[in-house]
Amino acid sequence: MIGSKASGRDGGKRAGDGMADEDLSGATPLLDGVHSPADLRRMPDGDLVRLADELRHETIRVVSQTGGHLGSSLGVVELTVAVHAVFETPVDRFIFDVGHQCYPHKILTGRRARMGTLRQEGGLSGFTKRAESAYDPFGAAHSSTSISAGLGFAAARDLGQPEGDVICLIGDSALSSGMAFEALNNLGALRKRLFVIVNDNGMSIAPAVGALEAHLRGLARGDARGNLFESLGAAYHGPVDGHDLPGLLALMRRLRTEADGPVVIHALTTKGKGYGPAEASSCRYHGVTPFDAGTGVQQKGSAKALTAVFAEALIAEAKADHRIIAVTAGMPTGTGVDKFAAAFPDRAFDTGIAEQHAVTFAAGAAAGGLKPFCAIYSTFLQRGYDQIVHDVALQGLPVRFAIDRAGLVGADGPTHAGTFDIGFLTALPGFTVMAAADATELAHMVATAAAHDGGPIAFRYPRASAGGEAVPQRGTPLEIGKGRIVRTGHTLAFLSLGARLGAVTEAASMLARHGINPTIADARFAKPLDLDLIEKLANTHQVLITVEEGAAGGFGAAVLSHLALAGYLDGRCAVRPLTLPDSFIHQADMEIMYRHAGVSTDRLVRMSIDALQKMTRPKLVRM
Amino acid sequence: MIGSKASGRDGGKRAGDGMADEDLSGATPLLDGVHSPADLRRMPDGDLVRLADELRHETIRVVSQTGGHLGSSLGVVELTVAVHAVFETPVDRFIFDVGHQCYPHKILTGRRARMGTLRQEGGLSGFTKRAESAYDPFGAAHSSTSISAGLGFAAARDLGQPEGDVICLIGDSALSSGMAFEALNNLGALRKRLFVIVNDNGMSIAPAVGALEAHLRGLARGDARGNLFESLGAAYHGPVDGHDLPGLLALMRRLRTEADGPVVIHALTTKGKGYGPAEASSCRYHGVTPFDAGTGVQQKGSAKALTAVFAEALIAEAKADHRIIAVTAGMPTGTGVDKFAAAFPDRAFDTGIAEQHAVTFAAGAAAGGLKPFCAIYSTFLQRGYDQIVHDVALQGLPVRFAIDRAGLVGADGPTHAGTFDIGFLTALPGFTVMAAADATELAHMVATAAAHDGGPIAFRYPRASAGGEAVPQRGTPLEIGKGRIVRTGHTLAFLSLGARLGAVTEAASMLARHGINPTIADARFAKPLDLDLIEKLANTHQVLITVEEGAAGGFGAAVLSHLALAGYLDGRCAVRPLTLPDSFIHQADMEIMYRHAGVSTDRLVRMSIDALQKMTRPKLVRM
Repeated sequence: MIGSKASGRDGGKRAGDGMADEDLSGATPLLDGVHSPADLRRMPDGDLVRLADELRHETIRVVSQTGGHLGSSLGVVELTVAVHAVFETPVDRFIFDVGHQCYPHKILTGRRARMGTLRQEGGLSGFTKRAESAYDPFGAAHSSTSISAGLGFAAARDLGQPEGDVICLIGDSALSSGMAFEALNNLGALRKRLFVIVNDNGMSIAPAVGALEAHLRGLARGDARGNLFESLGAAYHGPVDGHDLPGLLALMRRLRTEADGPVVIHALTTKGKGYGPAEASSCRYHGVTPFDAGTGVQQKGSAKALTAVFAEALIAEAKADHRIIAVTAGMPTGTGVDKFAAAFPDRAFDTGIAEQHAVTFAAGAAAGGLKPFCAIYSTFLQRGYDQIVHDVALQGLPVRFAIDRAGLVGADGPTHAGTFDIGFLTALPGFTVMAAADATELAHMVATAAAHDGGPIAFRYPRASAGGEAVPQRGTPLEIGKGRIVRTGHTLAFLSLGARLGAVTEAASMLARHGINPTIADARFAKPLDLDLIEKLANTHQVLITVEEGAAGGFGAAVLSHLALAGYLDGRCAVRPLTLPDSFIHQADMEIMYRHAGVSTDRLVRMSIDALQKMTRPKLVRM
Repeated sequence: MIGSKASGRDGGKRAGDGMADEDLSGATPLLDGVHSPADLRRMPDGDLVRLADELRHETIRVVSQTGGHLGSSLGVVELTVAVHAVFETPVDRFIFDVGHQCYPHKILTGRRARMGTLRQEGGLSGFTKRAESAYDPFGAAHSSTSISAGLGFAAARDLGQPEGDVICLIGDSALSSGMAFEALNNLGALRKRLFVIVNDNGMSIAPAVGALEAHLRGLARGDARGNLFESLGAAYHGPVDGHDLPGLLALMRRLRTEADGPVVIHALTTKGKGYGPAEASSCRYHGVTPFDAGTGVQQKGSAKALTAVFAEALIAEAKADHRIIAVTAGMPTGTGVDKFAAAFPDRAFDTGIAEQHAVTFAAGAAAGGLKPFCAIYSTFLQRGYDQIVHDVALQGLPVRFAIDRAGLVGADGPTHAGTFDIGFLTALPGFTVMAAADATELAHMVATAAAHDGGPIAFRYPRASAGGEAVPQRGTPLEIGKGRIVRTGHTLAFLSLGARLGAVTEAASMLARHGINPTIADARFAKPLDLDLIEKLANTHQVLITVEEGAAGGFGAAVLSHLALAGYLDGRCAVRPLTLPDSFIHQADMEIMYRHAGVSTDRLVRMSIDALQKMTRPKLVRM
């Protein structure tokens, strides 16, 4: 792929290999005595070095049981110890970018005993979280926010608020995002005292994506052209060995005394440092399932994911049309664009963590005659919203948006949920918006998007496995704006958009036991609406329940608005829009999250019976 | 203000002064012979220099009659002539960033005769527009998109599409946005042949905002630390005099022959070049009303704007609470933050054109104990959407969003309309969203936002004048989630959100002549909804019409969804949500745009009568 790199944000999971090269007996005498970072400030440097080793082993032990982000956490063990030992956290603000590298930080900040609950229902978040600890001044999960937030704390401090020093820990991939540049640009002008630690593990990843990545390599080798950080008005210190704790302690102590403005510490680290199986591959062990700490072998992941279905369907389309390209914003593995890149190396583009650019790059490519598929998770697509509105929709350019992780996502929790895309895309004139009910529908929607050249089009699909179904090698284009009847019944109709169709079908079976025989329709399109289907359902049923895995203001709202304006809601049919609730759903197993979100099978059954009981009025059928 | 600068995007209008220093007799013998850029390629360089002078005079003459963006267009006359004379437009793609500096380009590309229709209904757009000309390969209006789009064209070319060279013309302010950095970062890695012309008029603006701006000054003086463009892998040429046409021609001809990768041409220009009154001030004459070409005196603008009402109300709050700060993303004049900065220099922050950073900076400041007011136009707030979701809403941080230019905006057209904010903000859990019906309500909402520390809160207001009303020096906090009854009637109720209340009131008067006496309520809050008010209106009226100046999926949809789930839409009351239509509304006078948008007084009257005629069923009143 053109400029591909396993991004710090890429959640690809693979089976581990290689043998561990560490003693994992796990005695942690020094760590056992650490109850808060203040304890580190009382330790001699030699003990801090041993503590770092214990902390690394503890991190491996914990993640081998819980799964999670291992490699990135192992890469910042020494940096984490150094910051807590030198600065007065939590009065001094230690802000993690992305936050998936915060496990050693959590172990040191009073959360060690709860690490076994990591990423589970009611347990610790896999990221930094303000509600969790005073040592997490700013929550994260999306990339490249730390310097902006840190500058906000620094501004508060300099206006008299009781804030101390600000230390932002940001990875090289996150630094390549425009948001981080905007913050550095503002920081360099405001000249605030603020410490930016660049956690540069790029050396262990090749090929690098982005000119900045190449510049960092040059700085590491000492043969860079200029120094971007100095060009932006920061004092640059580095490169330093991010695993040489005594060196880090000395540098940070000196800078803490001397710094009078923006400081950048360029630390070279190894992702997965100190754990053979992880060091052996930086992409593996980024996000892992529980594994054998001795061998590094991970528990088997789930069945074939919809992500792979998308990738294979897109490859099939691309074989038939050389104008198709794939664009990912730093997520080749997570989006399946890595598979596309293997098949068409010169037609896959990884922009790095740069959704704004990725969307407008795709718009330019479409204006230039290509058929770009922009593969971005729902939650990260929010980063490119203005570009979707202004560069794609307003110009009616046929950019295809493949929206993975649409809906709830499980262990990653609310920061990664894909909740808002239906609403923010259907609001845009000329946009076609689809949601796939299953793997076969997803393949058809990829074909539909490839065939649709009349304007922008998007299709969303959840973080889920394809199940057992046989998916066609290549999909068949759907008729734009037409849904399908899945089951014909009477009195009650479900109009489902997307992957909750399975739950709807289950609900119908349960309702049958109550003598209720519902009609089930799959809308397929959130925009344009299938008005014939909607009006037919409203005309011939007493209750119509719309179902979608997204926030209010999306599909159900559009159905309601049409029926209201067309005069269908004046007594003929009771409509009930079921959406995700007006709250953030915390991490848990998927089925539990669906229950908490009120979009479970049980809820559908209850809602159906309640609505039917309210509709006792005789049915008026319109001519 | 901290790091303030009159941004290239800032639409502040001021009365002109100073005398013109040019002969404006207006004979244009060479320009008269130019029917397309191909004619430039047949001219000797000496004629091109004279042509540039004629083009400058023609631009001044046109804008003196139509109003528009004068200063930025005058600054790029020579650059525009040079690009068209050296490159084979339109096969070679000349992409303007922002596009407000494209008037000379339009005059040269077959649109001279229509320049008198600039920014008027049915006339030429004030920006580049694909639908308008083959010489506008990519439309613009928002900033910093040109390099991303250009890279898309270059990728299409290198994959076999019939695209030529790509030349992106981007200003220094636009370059400071993260999106442009993302594009440069990707460009430097892809090593595509692409020409970036940096139109650097920063020298005429002080103080500069952002470290990049300071770096550009250093490059201009020859004493910069390093070279940011070279650090990102581009070949840097400059600084060059952007008004020395022979020099520009020679450089571009050479680079066109030699370039084998990314090229940056750093051209120093003077905004308003060649027109005394414009050169005298770079902020003045950015966007102007029609003016006397001889004296530069502009026609009087409209009465006091809501922008000023916001600024004065915020200053009143800030006098009472030292924690209040104001944040603008490169728009101090347009948002009124310049007034706040005059009163509180150390509490006003201009991030430059960097909405992503501005929002998260405000979130960090809120986490640090401040009360940030983030003043961003509705259309530009789209640039910070993910930060609003992930950094503000998810953490429940009390960031205040002052959303100016909400709704239709007139001459700037669809790129600047504030259409989608109600929907994309009300979708977010914990968000409070208000819309001001008039200047007094706006003052109250500023006070409400200042007092509300329980989570994020936003208030929207249109591009409009305050009218004659007496606005209180300082507003009074409103009860969260409570609307108000403006007029008590029966049978028909209007529930209005925001500034269409005036049209609703007019409609009521017209309906009175038909013997209809409507109730009028001002919702004030799009979120949380005033459920008591809504249910009361639905219970006691046969028809309820919601009115908002925003896209479907916003306020009316939320009202409908609540009433549907609560069982109110089962025959009791007919609800009609009136929103902006599912189309982009082209530039025109405001009243005409409202008619085109179907949110005019007439439309309200028709809709009311139609709905009442449909509701003949006797009214059921719920106990």
